[in-house]
Amino acid sequence: MPIYNAPLADMKFILNDVFKAEQFWQANEKLAHVDAATAEAILEEMAKFAQNVTHPLNRTGDEEGARYENGEVFTPAGFKDAFRQYAEGGWIGLGADEEWGGQGMPKMLTVLADEMLFATNPSFMLYPLLSVGAGMALSSYASQEQKETYLPKIYSGEWSGTMCLTEPHAGTDLGIIKTKAERNEDGTYNITGTKIFITGGDNDLAENIIHLVLAKTPDAPAGSRGISLFIVPKYLVNEDGSLGDRNHVGPGSIEHKMGIKASATCVMNFDGAKGYLVGKENEGLAAMFVMMNYERLSMGIQGLGASEFAYQNAAQYATDRLQGRSAAGVQSPSKPADSILVHGDVRRMLLNVRANNEASRAFAVYVGQQLDITKFSTDAEAVKKANDRVALLTPIAKAYLTDTAFQATLDAQMVFGGHGYIREWGMEQCIRDLRIAQIYEGTNGVQSQDLIGRKTIKCGGAFIAEYITEIRDFANDLDTDLNFIKDATLDAATEIEAITQFIIEQAAENVEFPNSAAVDYLHAVGLLSFSYMFAKIAAAAKDKSGDFYQNKLALAQYFVERILPDIDARIAKIKAGSDLIMGFSEDYFTNQA
Amino acid sequence: MPIYNAPLADMKFILNDVFKAEQFWQANEKLAHVDAATAEAILEEMAKFAQNVTHPLNRTGDEEGARYENGEVFTPAGFKDAFRQYAEGGWIGLGADEEWGGQGMPKMLTVLADEMLFATNPSFMLYPLLSVGAGMALSSYASQEQKETYLPKIYSGEWSGTMCLTEPHAGTDLGIIKTKAERNEDGTYNITGTKIFITGGDNDLAENIIHLVLAKTPDAPAGSRGISLFIVPKYLVNEDGSLGDRNHVGPGSIEHKMGIKASATCVMNFDGAKGYLVGKENEGLAAMFVMMNYERLSMGIQGLGASEFAYQNAAQYATDRLQGRSAAGVQSPSKPADSILVHGDVRRMLLNVRANNEASRAFAVYVGQQLDITKFSTDAEAVKKANDRVALLTPIAKAYLTDTAFQATLDAQMVFGGHGYIREWGMEQCIRDLRIAQIYEGTNGVQSQDLIGRKTIKCGGAFIAEYITEIRDFANDLDTDLNFIKDATLDAATEIEAITQFIIEQAAENVEFPNSAAVDYLHAVGLLSFSYMFAKIAAAAKDKSGDFYQNKLALAQYFVERILPDIDARIAKIKAGSDLIMGFSEDYFTNQA
Repeated sequence: MPIYNAPLADMKFILNDVFKAEQFWQANEKLAHVDAATAEAILEEMAKFAQNVTHPLNRTGDEEGARYENGEVFTPAGFKDAFRQYAEGGWIGLGADEEWGGQGMPKMLTVLADEMLFATNPSFMLYPLLSVGAGMALSSYASQEQKETYLPKIYSGEWSGTMCLTEPHAGTDLGIIKTKAERNEDGTYNITGTKIFITGGDNDLAENIIHLVLAKTPDAPAGSRGISLFIVPKYLVNEDGSLGDRNHVGPGSIEHKMGIKASATCVMNFDGAKGYLVGKENEGLAAMFVMMNYERLSMGIQGLGASEFAYQNAAQYATDRLQGRSAAGVQSPSKPADSILVHGDVRRMLLNVRANNEASRAFAVYVGQQLDITKFSTDAEAVKKANDRVALLTPIAKAYLTDTAFQATLDAQMVFGGHGYIREWGMEQCIRDLRIAQIYEGTNGVQSQDLIGRKTIKCGGAFIAEYITEIRDFANDLDTDLNFIKDATLDAATEIEAITQFIIEQAAENVEFPNSAAVDYLHAVGLLSFSYMFAKIAAAAKDKSGDFYQNKLALAQYFVERILPDIDARIAKIKAGSDLIMGFSEDYFTNQA
Repeated sequence: MPIYNAPLADMKFILNDVFKAEQFWQANEKLAHVDAATAEAILEEMAKFAQNVTHPLNRTGDEEGARYENGEVFTPAGFKDAFRQYAEGGWIGLGADEEWGGQGMPKMLTVLADEMLFATNPSFMLYPLLSVGAGMALSSYASQEQKETYLPKIYSGEWSGTMCLTEPHAGTDLGIIKTKAERNEDGTYNITGTKIFITGGDNDLAENIIHLVLAKTPDAPAGSRGISLFIVPKYLVNEDGSLGDRNHVGPGSIEHKMGIKASATCVMNFDGAKGYLVGKENEGLAAMFVMMNYERLSMGIQGLGASEFAYQNAAQYATDRLQGRSAAGVQSPSKPADSILVHGDVRRMLLNVRANNEASRAFAVYVGQQLDITKFSTDAEAVKKANDRVALLTPIAKAYLTDTAFQATLDAQMVFGGHGYIREWGMEQCIRDLRIAQIYEGTNGVQSQDLIGRKTIKCGGAFIAEYITEIRDFANDLDTDLNFIKDATLDAATEIEAITQFIIEQAAENVEFPNSAAVDYLHAVGLLSFSYMFAKIAAAAKDKSGDFYQNKLALAQYFVERILPDIDARIAKIKAGSDLIMGFSEDYFTNQA
């Protein structure tokens, strides 16, 4: 039976010591209602919910899976009750505006609450996550009337939300979607088409489902400039807010997947369904990207949650499993064998995972803080700077945190030996469930294109230059007893600066270059980011006494010695350029002879 | 519906051009019955079997799974008939001695046949694989009478074989097994205990199952020096070879696993079952290691097969999937979008997989050739040298080929985007099925310990030094137009030489050092080995005209530029040493605070 104990000690350390969250909140009028005690109380409540409600439903949810029967989708046993408890606890609107029934909590805090839910039950977490994403898009772009109609019910959990983008022939390339939106005389639209991969597209958790749907009006411009966003409710909503007729939208089937089996991934058929335009025609993609960016950071948190879950279980297994003897001689003479923790390779795997968790957690809070500045700060310059930082770091938060987390869960599974491959230990489900986080909401390859293209080359490297300046300023201020992380971070910053310049120069001469360099660049910037996080962690820990803090310094050193060296290999691969890759004929790939 | 076309062109190139197999066979009296035409005919027949028989059963086998009912195990629909066809085709004994009904084919050839079966149906392949492994152990250590009784029936497929090592508390550490073997007056033994993770421990494919079981006699020395090997048939065998009474052995349950679901992984209960000693008491481990080493190379082939399967499907998907436009401008104006093959990152992933396949295949044939020398050569010095090489390369063949293949299948899955996560495309099963290859037959961590400890430090680096000499001799003879691979290979050899020396020195001072360095060392030596293989491939291709050969050179260059750079990161991590890793207290790992 897998274990999970919410990592509250590290969460509090990161909020209080690393980021001095209370000072940040108290200095901002719109966040002054949050203090450290409130934040800790929220984390402790969520820890109980995750440990007692969602964790026990994780394996049963996987075994049972979501079901499609007679045109309806049913979630596994226990999910409906858990969702009700979650909604009643006010968790869906934890980070939403109080105006619409939310709790107005800062993102730096909600990322930590989200981590616990992702750690214990990623399938479950996806249902409220999509509701929150839909709420965000509506908050930013919907009319006042639409907000009043939909937001309170979404945040109360009476209704849920979805995000309907992908079609069978159109995934990354939304410009070629075929779903049609025909104007009615009353200002509504008739939506017709098929959407796939719709998380929670149908479910039995909420009494109504608010679909946010991308579609094209008959006279829309070609490509992504001709996409509009519509609200398409499962049940039409009467003027008094009660539910009216069933709309012409419903699930055609659900997908059979590698993991997140308790999350219903639906094919959704829109057959002249009534839709309500959000914002203006042909401006739907911008609204959808509000939602997408929110989800993208969340996917990074999914990685962190899985990696934390995997760590705890692997560390416990390694402690309990007696096998072989230490190279330094028998350690537990009264037992038939020593714990496998005596073996350096087992420790290496566990430390890889733990280093990933602590750096990822700090990074998630860091990006959360930047998002909070964009939302709550009244200082226009600070908002602009934070917007740039969020733009730069969103693809890293999504792709780097899920790539490293996936590798971490593999390391953790390996600690179990053969038992890691058996369902009852929970590791194989953790891996299957996590794998999708590297793929959905824009594959990690697409995230990398976003980073190297729109976020770096397009602005002449301005965003990354600002980030490097911040990192250098921080590292230069570190005391000399932190030279191990100071030097490593400054060196990494210099390497990233140089390779960014190289990329910008190459891109000017060769349009094919960036695409082939993108993933390695994202990983290189990710490594610098983790080094920065460990510099912050080390700075917060160094003057405090006790094993907890000293171990933070040791883990930072582990990162420098055992993980950061990958940056050179990434840079070497970028320098290889794209000529060789693009030189193979298209036929080569499917031809053997 | 996944595709599979046996990669016969590359297989023939590797056998004929890279390794000049016919010359090698014809020069050896015991292999003179094999020529290139025979070898090609065998590969072509196996290709048909894999494409037409095992491939169609791969997904249905996964969906249905092996079943345990009322004390018996049933394989999925179609497996029994496929096994019968496989047996009747003479495939089980393809590499076995003709004396016992085998076909006496060299390992350099059988690895390629095995690859096709692993590519199309790894769950199926494990059944005959265990039979062959049991046959190998019996061939080497059993009495003449035991060989006569068991080997012909195993190779004919009438009976199958298993390998019963692991117990609930004893996996890697076989020294602490508890299964007891009590001597009877008639020279037989009564075997009592529980074994787990027994592949094909019960099945409905064969009329009898020959278990090879490790157990301890009452007066056996403690630890691994007190382990004996026994034959325990499911049905006792009468003197005339007919089946007698049911023996007291049977499955207690089967495991529910991440993958290879059609392969029955059994808990086996031995309840005073009659057993027959193989060889001498307390010398069982050596016999079992004959089998283990055979299986370990096979696991590498499992990796190669999966990686080839993944490549073919991803390359086809990338060719067919239209999404987005080339950075260089529209390539297919008549279509709504370009094939995703226009994107450098998609090509990068596919080339990673293809480079892995071609290097792994060459390496498997290379190790196979070394095994053939140990078995068939009459030159004692050549045999000794080949034995050393096999000892050195077995852990690399097992662990490096499965680690790289797993990463390759992940790359291939990513090419599919969201569709890679859906069962119908076959990629997620491929990954689930392959993951076990990194874990079983000794985890890849354990393989790495074997490489760095017994195979390197113990002999003062003699094995690796011989290997490096061979590599240098080969590389130095390359023409200057192959400088790109010549220089890369020589540099890698020098790096491995230096880090090996470093490891030997460190190990002399610090017994903890090797364990923590082992996995990075294995990967570094693996990268050198692949560079050597690409040097051989390039040498065989360079003077031939045609795209097939020129693409081999380009792929070798891709390896040098895009994969080999990882060697420096591996070496940097080894140099970090073990003090930091071992300095964490045991409590640290399970403590959060």
